[in-house]
Amino acid sequence: MLYIVGLGPGSQQLMTQEAIETIKKVDTIVGYITYIHLVEDMIKGKDIVTTGMRGEIERSKKAIEIAETGKDVAIISSGDAGIYGMAGLVLEMAAKEDKHVDIKVIPGVTASIAAAAALGAPLMNDFCHISLSDLMTPWDVIKDRLDAAAKSDFVICLYNPRSKGRPNNLREALNIILKYKSEDTVVGIGKDVARKHEIDKITTIKDLDETEINMTTIVIVGNKNTYVADGRMITPRGYTL
Amino acid sequence: MLYIVGLGPGSQQLMTQEAIETIKKVDTIVGYITYIHLVEDMIKGKDIVTTGMRGEIERSKKAIEIAETGKDVAIISSGDAGIYGMAGLVLEMAAKEDKHVDIKVIPGVTASIAAAAALGAPLMNDFCHISLSDLMTPWDVIKDRLDAAAKSDFVICLYNPRSKGRPNNLREALNIILKYKSEDTVVGIGKDVARKHEIDKITTIKDLDETEINMTTIVIVGNKNTYVADGRMITPRGYTL
Repeated sequence: MLYIVGLGPGSQQLMTQEAIETIKKVDTIVGYITYIHLVEDMIKGKDIVTTGMRGEIERSKKAIEIAETGKDVAIISSGDAGIYGMAGLVLEMAAKEDKHVDIKVIPGVTASIAAAAALGAPLMNDFCHISLSDLMTPWDVIKDRLDAAAKSDFVICLYNPRSKGRPNNLREALNIILKYKSEDTVVGIGKDVARKHEIDKITTIKDLDETEINMTTIVIVGNKNTYVADGRMITPRGYTL
Repeated sequence: MLYIVGLGPGSQQLMTQEAIETIKKVDTIVGYITYIHLVEDMIKGKDIVTTGMRGEIERSKKAIEIAETGKDVAIISSGDAGIYGMAGLVLEMAAKEDKHVDIKVIPGVTASIAAAAALGAPLMNDFCHISLSDLMTPWDVIKDRLDAAAKSDFVICLYNPRSKGRPNNLREALNIILKYKSEDTVVGIGKDVARKHEIDKITTIKDLDETEINMTTIVIVGNKNTYVADGRMITPRGYTL
């Protein structure tokens, strides 16, 4: 059996019961080394298969091969495995190569949800997730989505907002958003949420310091009703209070 | 201390470790009766405060009042408390009434994530969440968001898709989506996910039977690349395989 497990954002406190039990019961764990470290104390004595960054295809292939031998194997992903994680790739590869192994996807808390909880309640109205990584989605498609989301006033969660290889995508994204949203729109930043050096910060589009943002940061841009109260970022659901 | 706790979609297996520990340690649980039932076996001997459906404001007020007396109280929500749940309301009310109680939001697995895992991996590319309940958001705003999301080919998760009081919103929403997406677009339906009578189904916009959809159903409309393989709904991330 092959389990695709979302570990949540970082701490074991935010793993689901099912994810914990699965990690504990399988024979083999397959994952990127950073994620292996997140569950180190739970996997002593198990077979560990790890590859470097961008080794997703190799890891998926190995996990499927191991499951074919009849072993129980978990391939792990941070956050939720189905949101920009490993679930799609493993299912695609198993189908393409006609491997009929039993596969179960175990959901997890994705980064935006954990960041939102740390910041307050910014996702109480309609929102979207957009990854600013244009490695696999053309930048024009991403720009079009940013435009549409800002125009119709979604709360916008930006994944993979900024990296050394893409230092300008975030600025370009914010410029698109500014066509429709005020520069005073509230922005929440969750960096390394539920990990050791977590930083949560509430600012505005105008005051956002891009250099503080990296690939382990989630940026949440509010809608026109999002406000700050008692240090929390709140998007009203619409109750009359 | 006031904890706002997302219980996940239904089964305790999908609760986070932190949610479980919090529910167990607090003195008082405040929640809608259906959610109280989800954690019944964990809360024996605790004070329980419950109100009927649409009693959200009353429940929030009570939870804040109890926290003010110095007790530890958890107000519970299904899914993630910050997504169309109780977190925003509690934070808004505490701020408005100038109640400086300590509040912590504990994130959970929201319904779309659990449904996605049950269906396969439909959320592997940019997606949005739109609630079709027009009780608190004007229908015109919702329609505008549906239009924008479909036009720029987001995967679309529909929350509160259909109720007795709003039998036609889903049909109207699908008609808007059909302006841009093919009638053969893959649609995933997750009903009562992680609960007793769970039904997961993969269909298309054309073949979707609206009468099967109710308020405990999540409808996930794929993007133009979403496909079905081995009975799973998959939205490719974009890897070249």
